[in-house]
Amino acid sequence: MDFEIPAELAALRQRVRAFIADEIIPMEQDPRQTAHGPTEELRLELVAKARRAGLLSAHVSPEYGGLGLDHRSKAVFFEEAGYSLLGPVALNIFAPDEGNMHLLEAVATDAQKERWLRPLAAGATRSCFCMTEPDPGAGSDPSMLATTAVRDGDDYLISGRKWFITGAKGAAFAIIMAKLEDGRATMFLADMDQPGITIERAMDTLDRCFPGGHCVVRFDGLRVPARDILGELGEGFKYAQVRLSPARLTHCMRWLGAAHRAHDIATAYARRRHAFGKPLGHHEGVGFMLADNEMDLHMARLSIWHTAWVLDQGGLGLHDSSMTKVIASEAEWRVADRCVQIMGGQGVTGETLVARIFADMRGFRIYDGPSEVHRWSIAKRILKGLHREEHRQ
Amino acid sequence: MDFEIPAELAALRQRVRAFIADEIIPMEQDPRQTAHGPTEELRLELVAKARRAGLLSAHVSPEYGGLGLDHRSKAVFFEEAGYSLLGPVALNIFAPDEGNMHLLEAVATDAQKERWLRPLAAGATRSCFCMTEPDPGAGSDPSMLATTAVRDGDDYLISGRKWFITGAKGAAFAIIMAKLEDGRATMFLADMDQPGITIERAMDTLDRCFPGGHCVVRFDGLRVPARDILGELGEGFKYAQVRLSPARLTHCMRWLGAAHRAHDIATAYARRRHAFGKPLGHHEGVGFMLADNEMDLHMARLSIWHTAWVLDQGGLGLHDSSMTKVIASEAEWRVADRCVQIMGGQGVTGETLVARIFADMRGFRIYDGPSEVHRWSIAKRILKGLHREEHRQ
Amino acid sequence: MDFEIPAELAALRQRVRAFIADEIIPMEQDPRQTAHGPTEELRLELVAKARRAGLLSAHVSPEYGGLGLDHRSKAVFFEEAGYSLLGPVALNIFAPDEGNMHLLEAVATDAQKERWLRPLAAGATRSCFCMTEPDPGAGSDPSMLATTAVRDGDDYLISGRKWFITGAKGAAFAIIMAKLEDGRATMFLADMDQPGITIERAMDTLDRCFPGGHCVVRFDGLRVPARDILGELGEGFKYAQVRLSPARLTHCMRWLGAAHRAHDIATAYARRRHAFGKPLGHHEGVGFMLADNEMDLHMARLSIWHTAWVLDQGGLGLHDSSMTKVIASEAEWRVADRCVQIMGGQGVTGETLVARIFADMRGFRIYDGPSEVHRWSIAKRILKGLHREEHRQ
Amino acid sequence: MDFEIPAELAALRQRVRAFIADEIIPMEQDPRQTAHGPTEELRLELVAKARRAGLLSAHVSPEYGGLGLDHRSKAVFFEEAGYSLLGPVALNIFAPDEGNMHLLEAVATDAQKERWLRPLAAGATRSCFCMTEPDPGAGSDPSMLATTAVRDGDDYLISGRKWFITGAKGAAFAIIMAKLEDGRATMFLADMDQPGITIERAMDTLDRCFPGGHCVVRFDGLRVPARDILGELGEGFKYAQVRLSPARLTHCMRWLGAAHRAHDIATAYARRRHAFGKPLGHHEGVGFMLADNEMDLHMARLSIWHTAWVLDQGGLGLHDSSMTKVIASEAEWRVADRCVQIMGGQGVTGETLVARIFADMRGFRIYDGPSEVHRWSIAKRILKGLHREEHRQ
Repeated sequence: MDFEIPAELAALRQRVRAFIADEIIPMEQDPRQTAHGPTEELRLELVAKARRAGLLSAHVSPEYGGLGLDHRSKAVFFEEAGYSLLGPVALNIFAPDEGNMHLLEAVATDAQKERWLRPLAAGATRSCFCMTEPDPGAGSDPSMLATTAVRDGDDYLISGRKWFITGAKGAAFAIIMAKLEDGRATMFLADMDQPGITIERAMDTLDRCFPGGHCVVRFDGLRVPARDILGELGEGFKYAQVRLSPARLTHCMRWLGAAHRAHDIATAYARRRHAFGKPLGHHEGVGFMLADNEMDLHMARLSIWHTAWVLDQGGLGLHDSSMTKVIASEAEWRVADRCVQIMGGQGVTGETLVARIFADMRGFRIYDGPSEVHRWSIAKRILKGLHREEHRQ
Repeated sequence: MDFEIPAELAALRQRVRAFIADEIIPMEQDPRQTAHGPTEELRLELVAKARRAGLLSAHVSPEYGGLGLDHRSKAVFFEEAGYSLLGPVALNIFAPDEGNMHLLEAVATDAQKERWLRPLAAGATRSCFCMTEPDPGAGSDPSMLATTAVRDGDDYLISGRKWFITGAKGAAFAIIMAKLEDGRATMFLADMDQPGITIERAMDTLDRCFPGGHCVVRFDGLRVPARDILGELGEGFKYAQVRLSPARLTHCMRWLGAAHRAHDIATAYARRRHAFGKPLGHHEGVGFMLADNEMDLHMARLSIWHTAWVLDQGGLGLHDSSMTKVIASEAEWRVADRCVQIMGGQGVTGETLVARIFADMRGFRIYDGPSEVHRWSIAKRILKGLHREEHRQ
Repeated sequence: MDFEIPAELAALRQRVRAFIADEIIPMEQDPRQTAHGPTEELRLELVAKARRAGLLSAHVSPEYGGLGLDHRSKAVFFEEAGYSLLGPVALNIFAPDEGNMHLLEAVATDAQKERWLRPLAAGATRSCFCMTEPDPGAGSDPSMLATTAVRDGDDYLISGRKWFITGAKGAAFAIIMAKLEDGRATMFLADMDQPGITIERAMDTLDRCFPGGHCVVRFDGLRVPARDILGELGEGFKYAQVRLSPARLTHCMRWLGAAHRAHDIATAYARRRHAFGKPLGHHEGVGFMLADNEMDLHMARLSIWHTAWVLDQGGLGLHDSSMTKVIASEAEWRVADRCVQIMGGQGVTGETLVARIFADMRGFRIYDGPSEVHRWSIAKRILKGLHREEHRQ
Repeated sequence: MDFEIPAELAALRQRVRAFIADEIIPMEQDPRQTAHGPTEELRLELVAKARRAGLLSAHVSPEYGGLGLDHRSKAVFFEEAGYSLLGPVALNIFAPDEGNMHLLEAVATDAQKERWLRPLAAGATRSCFCMTEPDPGAGSDPSMLATTAVRDGDDYLISGRKWFITGAKGAAFAIIMAKLEDGRATMFLADMDQPGITIERAMDTLDRCFPGGHCVVRFDGLRVPARDILGELGEGFKYAQVRLSPARLTHCMRWLGAAHRAHDIATAYARRRHAFGKPLGHHEGVGFMLADNEMDLHMARLSIWHTAWVLDQGGLGLHDSSMTKVIASEAEWRVADRCVQIMGGQGVTGETLVARIFADMRGFRIYDGPSEVHRWSIAKRILKGLHREEHRQ
């Protein structure tokens, strides 16, 4: 029961904070930002800055060029990174690559790691994770997986259609979830520059911070040799779980930083701007929103730290990470929404970053499991009495 | 105490509904839509459709080419119009032009009406309303008005800077609020194609449905002859009130239609899409959101109707329109937000109109007085005991 | 689309308001009030006052001594009555008697009316409605009805256990819902002073305003002759519906009056009490609560009026009365809760009526169908597309 | 950053949990419980049990008979104690005595400790804290203190009226806050059995768990010798702060236990009770409430632990304890309210403990500073930029 950030970690936090403030925030107006994230040129410039600062791919083990942070250290580091919407890209800890690196490190063979993880962790390439499918395929309910992998000699032929494939455009390779003939799910690794893979289009989304956008991808008999299976045959859902809890949690961390940024902007405005004879913030209607922001940020942070600790103890953390996903995504959203409101008309414009954070963040209450699916699964655990052991309290 | 829609109005509603369904919704994918609303070319095509259908400028008196609807009839008509984001533009009842027509009809001289109202009501021109100013000028607190009008012979010279001037780009004329040397506020009419008026830029906003966008406009000694004063000298704030209650209310009506549209899209999806073995809507987590939508739409509509009735009785309706602004804008927003959530990942994309409605609507909790300012003024009336008489109940 | 209260009704409202203010509120400190409502002695005194004022049993037809109000008139009348927690008792329009009178008038034979309705409508007797059963019997789900009625010659023998039987203690007669041998539900009328009926106990409840409290009642082979069946054999559920929508709605009306009372008390306090240099109400944190109260009361009232109008048009109003039940019970509850908060420490004490209203009202989000059951049934209608016709909009 | 409960503390928690389950819960139906808490006879029996178990006055140092727990240990211990509404009384850690012991230990002279603290910590006596005054005296705003202390030789004569004096009836002594002639506040110690002290009445409150109830107390020239001043003359507000943060926090801990109890009762019911063909909890409408409860309990606990840690580091924790007061009191209240709802009709009755917890807990959003006062003071710190240092993050 100790909330002290260890000195070494506090120092690292200070380095990230300074890096974001000095190197990244000045780049936020760079015109090389599209509706589908920063251009590859801009991304590589940002990554170069992070490499020089020795802060790249912090969650990856040193063997592959990272800092090897545990989950609690990530909680501190990623929150700072998220303070700029460009921060996670620069530090090479953005979704889906961050989760993909984690999964590869946990499951891939050494050869696979050399081929795909090493350049990815170096920030030289990008990747994508091909799981979600359009109706009537797999969305919140993974059991509806429709993409198939059919054995053909030593290879598999993958066919199907995916969407919301973040970062597909420009990705060097994909992790693809497909269903074997016996119905079991399996993950495959595949370079993107192959016949059999078509990026139909980038979807038009409210968020703009993800490099490569969210794409519709079609597989038409994509040929994948058996050696490019990720992990064991038929264990796709198990690996999805391995990726899930931590990936869900790192989203919470990054968006916490973004919410914090919005709160700081709104606070500064509430101090400066006057109306009806006093600073905005002295009106309780505004002051209470600031107070609620502060409490929401505090609760999101504590819940993230707690789940990070559970994961660091070796737990799967499914119950806790579900709770934290709901708590953090909803708290962070309330902060973003209140900041828009505090800013008044400006809140819905590009005059400050608040509108951007607001629009970018909305999807987070849906991605990685909508709040409703998590509430449902939390309830099931409660009813079965399973939550106590896992929760460790 | 009668909630029946009169037969004639019900028939008109049916005509608008059919017009929107048959003529406007098919245009929603028209590429001539920019980040700052439909192009003038598209707008004129849409207006031509409405003119042919005999549905143009419904709130304007027949003398100037409209249908002369009272407030309750507008409540029914405008809700239908709002069902498409292009509907209000087509029917020439969008903001700020709709409120400007109302104000001109109430206050302008006959000569001013011929010159500015007639072409505006015909849908031939657009207009803007120049009141809001950047910090430290007039925002929620109109008393902070900084733009000045200095007497110079028979003319006034107007100088100052405005922002959030909806529709400025492409507007034929402006209504400008400025402060006389004695501090009193006055409204002026001025064509936009004059030296002394500069549109600095269109602001980057979350909403995209307003023709001409929201602009920053600068006045540098703009010369306005005394005959172009709108109403009496020094009565600017009084006229702002004349414009305010109805304009606020028509916003509630139009956005109610948009919220209804989102709800219909989400309902159709909840019927069609399956997850975890049954249609989405059969999961209470989703079904309850649909139920809450239905109740929010119902309450917003009843509150709008009530205030429209108060205005039709000749009341100023300041208390009631404040209440309805808060009730409707917050209820409609909850609907939009829930619809995004129900749609899952699609909710934040251009796959359906829901994301567009969501982004377009966020500003409405701020425009025409943020919820906080209305709550404050409702509270003041309660504390002074003024709310009962006005409220008529 | 007319919100005007007709002059005659406005005059009646004024009479009720004066009656409550002059005759009933002065009785609120009368010590003859127990944890299970006013004593019979006090009730009869109150009823005598209402009889003298010509205001008794307003919802009953003049033939049986009432005022024969339609639903909209009841909306106005009952809200005024609810302004004192003793008002509905005095005016003989409290639950469950009010709903029982309605049901008897709609379904009973002339002989049954003479025997049971006439003295009830005169305020001479009280009644109870025996439907709800303890686990595993009928609660929110009426199909779980466990009490049986077995044919025995020309009679039926009723056996089973009921609870939450409001007013059982002291009631002259009961309406009993029981299941025939073929599973169909039937309603029976029975005097309470018979062998075969045992009132086991009055339950300890948060509310204290219901005469006779909420009791556990046991039937052990209670013999009921066939002529005392209420309506047709096997049509019990149909009659429950007849009773349900209006009864649900009158609850909303009465509690609206109570919420209004709490709001008036809190408003007076917020004007009078100073803290941190100004009246409480001038702190936005308190002022906003008053504003939200005002809006909640307004919405509850409008929704009630609307459903009353639907019922007056002859509709069953199941969809609308479900919506109004949720809207009104939750809005009125928020008002009560905010008033407690505004009053500070006093809010949880007997220093004012607020704490009493708060405690008495909590059950209303559960009685007559919990919010969750109504949301579920609203959702089902939406998904089936049934809500539009019924809703008449 | 470590959420592990140390082994020793985990063992202590287990002992408290067993004590509550085995010794206290069986006493919950004991008839010696009044509207103003357990009788003194019952209290002494409960205390004797705790003494035998070696668990008495855990927050007091061993020198005075307690366990000398730090704040984090209290967080764990007090939550377990609160699981029964009788637990804090039995363990001698209920309000206001728990806070009074803390204050005496921090500020009193040795002689004062021997006279007042020792028997209090032994559970032999009770005490009260006389600060709050009726309008227009000190409520949320302590600067409105109206009770006076006038120097008379070596003594002070105290006159004034206090209310909400928890535990006054039956208390052996009081800590009295009064204003000197120069306006400075001072605390005095005084035995209750003196001329000059009158307990006017016990107030009628929603809560029933506090021994001695909440009383109105009058001082008419109560004579207090200078040696019975608590701490330094004129430092009353400073000591109020010393008492405040920890006392506020222990309230959060105890009510967390009570909320947990309600949640466990509701969960058991949701598992057992069927409606509409399946267990209640399998309806998402109910399941989601259980999930939200779980998250609210989790957040309240984490926030309490964090502030306890801040206090253990030696901080005053004003900012953090304000945040935790709001977070915990509102989260715990939502839990209690949802449990009532889940239980259906039973939720508002004495059939289970849920209604009691609900009614007892309502005051907590007001006592120790209403949410509004805390939000206000959190906002002030944010606007001044003071919150970061204190918050230590």
